[in-house]
Amino acid sequence: MSTPVDLLINARWVIPVEPAGVTLEHHAVAVDCGRILGVLPQDDARVRYVAQRTVNLPDHVLIPGLVNLHAHCAMNLMRGIADDLPLMRWLQEAIWPAEAKHVSRNFVRDGTLLAAAEMLRGGITTCNEMYFHPDAAAEAFDQAGMRAVVGVTVLDFPTPYASDADDYLRKGLAARDQWRDHSRISFSLAPHAPYTVSDATFIRIASLAAELDAIIHIHIHETAHEISESLTHHGVRPLSRLAGLELLGGNFVGVHAVHLDDSDIDLLLRHNCSVAHCPSSNMKLASGVAPVARLLASGITVGLGTDGAASNNRLDLFQEMRHASLLAKVTTFDATVVPAHAAIRMATLSPAQALGLGHRIGSIEAGKEADLCAVALDTLETRPCFDPASHLAYVAGREHVSHVWVEGEIRVDKGHSVLQLNDTELLGFAALWQTRLSN
Amino acid sequence: MSTPVDLLINARWVIPVEPAGVTLEHHAVAVDCGRILGVLPQDDARVRYVAQRTVNLPDHVLIPGLVNLHAHCAMNLMRGIADDLPLMRWLQEAIWPAEAKHVSRNFVRDGTLLAAAEMLRGGITTCNEMYFHPDAAAEAFDQAGMRAVVGVTVLDFPTPYASDADDYLRKGLAARDQWRDHSRISFSLAPHAPYTVSDATFIRIASLAAELDAIIHIHIHETAHEISESLTHHGVRPLSRLAGLELLGGNFVGVHAVHLDDSDIDLLLRHNCSVAHCPSSNMKLASGVAPVARLLASGITVGLGTDGAASNNRLDLFQEMRHASLLAKVTTFDATVVPAHAAIRMATLSPAQALGLGHRIGSIEAGKEADLCAVALDTLETRPCFDPASHLAYVAGREHVSHVWVEGEIRVDKGHSVLQLNDTELLGFAALWQTRLSN
Repeated sequence: MSTPVDLLINARWVIPVEPAGVTLEHHAVAVDCGRILGVLPQDDARVRYVAQRTVNLPDHVLIPGLVNLHAHCAMNLMRGIADDLPLMRWLQEAIWPAEAKHVSRNFVRDGTLLAAAEMLRGGITTCNEMYFHPDAAAEAFDQAGMRAVVGVTVLDFPTPYASDADDYLRKGLAARDQWRDHSRISFSLAPHAPYTVSDATFIRIASLAAELDAIIHIHIHETAHEISESLTHHGVRPLSRLAGLELLGGNFVGVHAVHLDDSDIDLLLRHNCSVAHCPSSNMKLASGVAPVARLLASGITVGLGTDGAASNNRLDLFQEMRHASLLAKVTTFDATVVPAHAAIRMATLSPAQALGLGHRIGSIEAGKEADLCAVALDTLETRPCFDPASHLAYVAGREHVSHVWVEGEIRVDKGHSVLQLNDTELLGFAALWQTRLSN
Repeated sequence: MSTPVDLLINARWVIPVEPAGVTLEHHAVAVDCGRILGVLPQDDARVRYVAQRTVNLPDHVLIPGLVNLHAHCAMNLMRGIADDLPLMRWLQEAIWPAEAKHVSRNFVRDGTLLAAAEMLRGGITTCNEMYFHPDAAAEAFDQAGMRAVVGVTVLDFPTPYASDADDYLRKGLAARDQWRDHSRISFSLAPHAPYTVSDATFIRIASLAAELDAIIHIHIHETAHEISESLTHHGVRPLSRLAGLELLGGNFVGVHAVHLDDSDIDLLLRHNCSVAHCPSSNMKLASGVAPVARLLASGITVGLGTDGAASNNRLDLFQEMRHASLLAKVTTFDATVVPAHAAIRMATLSPAQALGLGHRIGSIEAGKEADLCAVALDTLETRPCFDPASHLAYVAGREHVSHVWVEGEIRVDKGHSVLQLNDTELLGFAALWQTRLSN
C-alpha cells in the first residue's frame, strides 16, 4: 500500500552531500510535514508514495538548501557604497560613518528583507547573521520564510543602537526571548571582533554562551594588522587571548581566519572550533588568503560565508563555492584541492554543523528538515553536463536556481519570484534608502 | 534640422571606457550604418536626431561590447569533462585523448556555435579564438553575427586535423584567404605554445605575421614547468627564446603570462607586446597568479580572456573582470589595485587594442563601430546602485545583460534569446556531442 506524502520531487540528479561525494540519478525525494521521508529511485517512489503534489525536475540537480555561515544582511542597503579600499579605511571612512548616521530598526528590517530575498533566490535557505537590531533582522527572516541564526551583536563602543556592552546584551537577549521556540529563528552570541571587545565582555559572553547553549559568532584573524595590534596590546595573538578567556569550543564560529600560524590552527582543532571562510570578501578587501586546504586536511569544519553586501558585493554562495575552490587551488599550486564535492559540502552540511544544526539540515537524508534547492542545468551556459557536481562548483550561477523549499514549503519557484515577498515593495525600500544614504 | 539615424539608445548610464573612468548619466548613443555617430545628453539627442528605432534603457548601463582575448570555443563541447587536475595531467589524460578521437570540422562548427551563443548572451561581441579547423570556427562566428579573430593554429605534432606545421599553416591560411575582406572575421597566426612549436616553425610564423600584418596569438609562461623545460632544452626562458626568434612585437598577444621575472616583463614592455590574462583558468588549473598589477603599472596592455570552457568552465567576462580585480587585490595585499573602471577596460578597450582593433571597437566613441552591451541593474540583486562601474565589476553577472549589438545590429534582446541562433538546435548539438564523448 502507498504512503500519502505532501510532496514528491523527481530530479534528474540528487546530490545529497551525505553520503559524501555521491550523485544519484533519477531519484526522488519524498517530503511530509516539512521533513524528508525518503530518498529513493523514482521507480520505487512511484510505488511507495502517493503525493499531494509532485514536482518534476528533468534537467535539474537537487541539493540541500545552502547555508550562509556569515552575513551582515542589512548592509545590502550599502551595496557598492565604497569599493577598492582596504578593510580599516573602508570601515573608518565609509561604513562606520554611514552606519552612525542611518542605522535604525527600519534600516535593519528593510535591508534584511532585501538580503533574504536575494539569498532565497540564490538557493540560500539559512543565514548566520550578525548586525545591529537583531529583533528587526529576525522579523525580516521570519517574513521571508528563511531560517536564520541571528547574532546578539556586542561591541565595547557605543553606536546609535546601544550604548555599551551591557546595553547590546540586554537588547539582544530580549530579542532572543521574544523569538524563543521559533522553528526557524534562533540566536547566537556575536562579539564583533577581538579588536572591538574587551576581556571582561568576552568572559561574560563565554559564560552566557554556556548557559544558553548558544553559538559564538565572531570575526577573527581577518587582517595582519589585527594580529600585530593584539600582540602589542595583549601580548598574544587574538585566538590565544580568546582561548585564555575560555571562549573557544565546539560552539565557536570564527569568521575569516585568514592569518593563522601553526599554534592558531592547533587551538582551533583542539577546541573543535569551526571556521567561516569568506573568500570573496577576503579578496576584495585584500585581507589575505585563508589556509583552507590545510584547515580541511586537519579536520576543522569549514563553511562558506558571503559577508555583507558592502564588502563582497553579492550574497551568492555559488560564487563563494567557486572562489573557495579556485583560490585554494591557485595559492597551493595544487589543482586537486577543494574539488567540486568539497566546495558543495562547505556551502551545505559543514556550515550547518558549525551552527549546531547538522542533525536538522545541510544534507538530503531521511529525517532531516526539507530545506532544498533545485538548479536547472538545461541552458546553453550549462550544456553539455558530464558531472552536475562540477557544474555546481565551476559553471552554474545562482541565476540557475529554479526552486527553493524551506521546511518543505516552496519559497522560490521557476521564474525566480520570491513567493512571500513583494519585489516591487523591496525595490522601493532599496530606492528609499539609497536616497537617504546619498544625502 | 534633425539628422536621421538608424538607432538611438537612451541609457540611464553610459560607461564609454574612453575617456577613462567616466560614467555618463542620462546619455544617448546615436548609431547609423553600424557606426557610433555621437554620445550626448538625451535632451540634446532628442533635438539633434530622428531615429528609425529608439531603445530606452531606464535602469541600464551601456558599455562597449566585451572583447574576449583568449578562447578555445569548440571546447564548449567538453565543458566539465575533467576537473580538479593540474594542466599537464588535464591535457594528457583528458583533453588530448578526447580531441584525438572526436575533433572534426563538425565538432568545431557545433562547439563554436554554442560558445558564440554563450558569449553573445553574456555581452561578448568579439572573440580572439584558437583551435583546430579555423574555417569551421569562422563559419560559426559569422552565423552567430559575432566579431572574431580566428587563429591559424600551428603545432609541431600531428593531430587528426593536420599532419605537421606545414599542413597546419596551409590549411589555416587557406581559411584566411576564404574569409578575406569580411567585416567581422579576421585571422591571426596562433602557434600553440613554446613547448609544442619548434624554432624553425616560429621563424616561419614571425615572417608570415610581418608579411600578412597579422596578430600572433600564443600561450606563454603558463606554468613553472614550462619555464624549467625551456631552460633545460633551450637554455633560456620561453620569452627570451621567442625574442631571439624575432617573434615579439606590437602584434604579439601572450596568453596567461603567469610566471614572469623582471627580464620577461622588460621584454614584453620593450617589444610593446600585449598580455591575455585568464584568471579563472589560471586559478582552476593551479597555474599561478599573473602579476597583473605590475604589468598594468608598467604600461603593458592587458586584456582578459576566458580560456576554453573545459578549463574555466564558463565563457563569462563578467566573472573574469571580478576575478582579475579580486585576485590582484588579495595577492598584492592592496585593495586599491585593479579598481572597477580598470577591470572594465581590461574587458573592452585593452583587448581591442591588443588585437589591433583599438581604432574600430572597445569604447563608445563617435566613429567607432557600434558593438554595444546593455546591462540591466533593476533587479533585487543589483539594488541599490551607488556606482554602476562598481556594480559591473563586483555585483552584476552576465545574466543581467539585456541587449547586445554588433555593428549596430541587435544580436541579443531582453529575455536573452540569441536572435540569429536557434536555442533548441544548439541544445541538440550539445546533447549529440555529449553522447559521443561519453562513449
